[in-house]
Amino acid sequence: MPQYQDIARELLARIDSGEFPPGGKLPSVRQLAERHGVNSLTALAAYRWLEQKQRVVARPRAGFYAALPAQTEGQVQTRALPSPATLVDVDSRMSQLVALSASGVAVQLHMAEAHHSLYPAAELARRLQQTLQRQPELIGAYLPAALHDRLCDQLRRLAASWQLDLPADEILFCNGITEGISLALRHLTRPGDTVAVETPVYFGLLQTLSALGLKALEIPCTPDAGLSLEALEFALQYGPPVRCLVTVTNFQNPTGALMPDDNKKRLLALARRHGVALIEDDVFGELYFGGPRPTPLKAWDRDGDVIYCASFTKSLAPSFRLGWLSGGRHHAALEKLRASSSLVSPALLLGVLSELLASGDYARISRKLRARLAEQMERVADAVLASFPRGTRLRRPQGGLLLWVEGPEALDSGRLLEAALKESISFAPGMLFSAEPRFRHCLRLNFGQPWDEAQRRAIARLGELAAEQLRTT
Amino acid sequence: MPQYQDIARELLARIDSGEFPPGGKLPSVRQLAERHGVNSLTALAAYRWLEQKQRVVARPRAGFYAALPAQTEGQVQTRALPSPATLVDVDSRMSQLVALSASGVAVQLHMAEAHHSLYPAAELARRLQQTLQRQPELIGAYLPAALHDRLCDQLRRLAASWQLDLPADEILFCNGITEGISLALRHLTRPGDTVAVETPVYFGLLQTLSALGLKALEIPCTPDAGLSLEALEFALQYGPPVRCLVTVTNFQNPTGALMPDDNKKRLLALARRHGVALIEDDVFGELYFGGPRPTPLKAWDRDGDVIYCASFTKSLAPSFRLGWLSGGRHHAALEKLRASSSLVSPALLLGVLSELLASGDYARISRKLRARLAEQMERVADAVLASFPRGTRLRRPQGGLLLWVEGPEALDSGRLLEAALKESISFAPGMLFSAEPRFRHCLRLNFGQPWDEAQRRAIARLGELAAEQLRTT
Repeated sequence: MPQYQDIARELLARIDSGEFPPGGKLPSVRQLAERHGVNSLTALAAYRWLEQKQRVVARPRAGFYAALPAQTEGQVQTRALPSPATLVDVDSRMSQLVALSASGVAVQLHMAEAHHSLYPAAELARRLQQTLQRQPELIGAYLPAALHDRLCDQLRRLAASWQLDLPADEILFCNGITEGISLALRHLTRPGDTVAVETPVYFGLLQTLSALGLKALEIPCTPDAGLSLEALEFALQYGPPVRCLVTVTNFQNPTGALMPDDNKKRLLALARRHGVALIEDDVFGELYFGGPRPTPLKAWDRDGDVIYCASFTKSLAPSFRLGWLSGGRHHAALEKLRASSSLVSPALLLGVLSELLASGDYARISRKLRARLAEQMERVADAVLASFPRGTRLRRPQGGLLLWVEGPEALDSGRLLEAALKESISFAPGMLFSAEPRFRHCLRLNFGQPWDEAQRRAIARLGELAAEQLRTT
Repeated sequence: MPQYQDIARELLARIDSGEFPPGGKLPSVRQLAERHGVNSLTALAAYRWLEQKQRVVARPRAGFYAALPAQTEGQVQTRALPSPATLVDVDSRMSQLVALSASGVAVQLHMAEAHHSLYPAAELARRLQQTLQRQPELIGAYLPAALHDRLCDQLRRLAASWQLDLPADEILFCNGITEGISLALRHLTRPGDTVAVETPVYFGLLQTLSALGLKALEIPCTPDAGLSLEALEFALQYGPPVRCLVTVTNFQNPTGALMPDDNKKRLLALARRHGVALIEDDVFGELYFGGPRPTPLKAWDRDGDVIYCASFTKSLAPSFRLGWLSGGRHHAALEKLRASSSLVSPALLLGVLSELLASGDYARISRKLRARLAEQMERVADAVLASFPRGTRLRRPQGGLLLWVEGPEALDSGRLLEAALKESISFAPGMLFSAEPRFRHCLRLNFGQPWDEAQRRAIARLGELAAEQLRTT
């Protein structure tokens, strides 16, 4: 047995003996190394091994803690459920939520996705076969130049239909929008820099910032108008120096907010005045309900200040990971960084995208999806308003996949999740969306699941559980 | 009929009337727009439509040209050729080589790839359709847990057949091996660190190091035994502190070297003694000719020191980008870094991989590919030995896609490439494979293209051009 496993087992025995209670702080890496007369790398390896076994939890800049016992009573589970307490660790929020999906939870409202049945799998399967049969060269490593050019042209025309004019040579494909945002941050920042984000904010972004050694400066964001420009201006004047701002302008995650066009223009001017680079995350922009597709901030960017990131993940085929970006004056640098990070995107999937854009099928598929989502949103919102305790507020979003529910101030959504999981219902509790305990009383509900009786009952039950909790505290 | 098609048809009539001869420059987008009183997007749409019909050709930054008649296809170049001089810049070597592929060069020997016709596109097309039809949930964003577990189990069994035993929870999928190597480097190093690499070395790795702000320390590598352990030991004792080593143990790029098992064991011990982490790049390992599949270095790694990176890119379906890694004691950290860099791999493509592994089709497909490559390697090697000047040396590799040719010392492979491109032949010149001018007299030839008369003549011609150059200098 490798030495680090010996050390890990000894520590495990001490945890099990009660020397370190669940949630208690464990010895530092240095202390552990000294105790066993090994170097810190070996001691760290022991901790990592225990972390993988979910027996210890790492907290950035705080060390290691004994994990809380997993709650496994009376549920069908294929995986261990994450405890709501472990969701507090920024670095594992994403993986913990994904683990919730893999668990046996019956009604899952915790992700930001549309159910797979809302995408035309059979049609896409035929397209894949036809495309590869007609263009066998797409099995090769690189995107043929003619297809690359055609696809860039198609994306430009699509973007132009939302008033966004992009230069021909400023389109880069990437593996989902996550890669686009990550490349943009890696290019713009150095470890230790401060990045302004919205609060509440998508926890995946907090995780990305943490992985890059960046500090998040949270700027308030409201469901009605998105990022508060007043708060941002104040922060830029009196707060720490900010290197860049990441903003989800259209149907923000988790609030669903749509930033008004006037605010987009003002934000651009404000960022320019303070020398702050902008990363625009438009992953939900194509999921608008009624009205014209919202125009990205990037449309008013005359100086190439904005790195615009988008994706077909939500609107066409999640598993294709068809992200793309337009990097403005940073574009050439982003192309190089991408080449050394993951080289190219799957040519076959880009070939299929091009055909779906050319034939008008993409327009049809996304239109149908939008109609379904708009209807599901209304049903979920109605059910929440009908069953949640007095004082609960929500604003129906004009697009996207997410409904932000603000419960009465006394509500603890972490405890609510604990109770809900026991009845096989999941949602994303408010505490995930900030490093601060600001949104303890809030819930993010996914309306991407087909509406049915089970959904209706689950939301009604959530409302009851919330009411019960408020009565008993 | 849409307006852009009206405009396109009018232009076509003018081309056919002889107003614009084949190869002649056509009006600019702006001129065309003015002539018809439309905006530039509409004029551009007309050009794109004609381009799709292959009646006009776009040249970047030069505009549109009337296409040449189909008979002269061989000479049509859709892209400007990069000059060998521009290949010197480390940061653009990769993109320049890819640009060479997009140019009209008739016989291309510069990449490290098998021709797309060597992969079973029709079979893969059927598989894609069947897989998605039977498992429509694979269009969703995340890999279903059951499929994830099955695939990990399949990869473990595959690796075990090469004597590599991997822990069940230490397999991570990524976007091609490039992402795996990049994540490993990002985890192990900080900007300014020194990374040991083989010399000659894959230029893409130099580009990745440069993008991460890392310094490369080049350790000699020979076609017969790969990395020189003597040189490495010397460098570790007397050179600058080295953070980690990246090594291609099996069929190294560009030399084709296979590191003997004894050297693999010694390398592990040496690295451990000096506290140097190891990144093993096994991208070519599955392309072995005869004999058992070589065992990775990782097989002897008892302490989790090696980050092992592999891929199905070369052996199954390049465009699927099915890379994976096993990170030893760094695994948990790499999983987190990957989640924040690109989240997940396309579930559909992983689903297809699982089916091909389960059915034995992967074994059949890769066996057939290996047999083709082994034969092509012999033909290319024979042709080089028959036509290149005296003093040229090569060692037939036991696998992979690459033949490393060491010309007489006086040969300048950069000038040779310049002469070869004029005759529509490409290869990768030695100077690409080091930051130093060590390999000026060497060439890397790709034997992944189907052997035919054009290949035979091209290699004979390369030999003549080399001889001519030596006579006239």
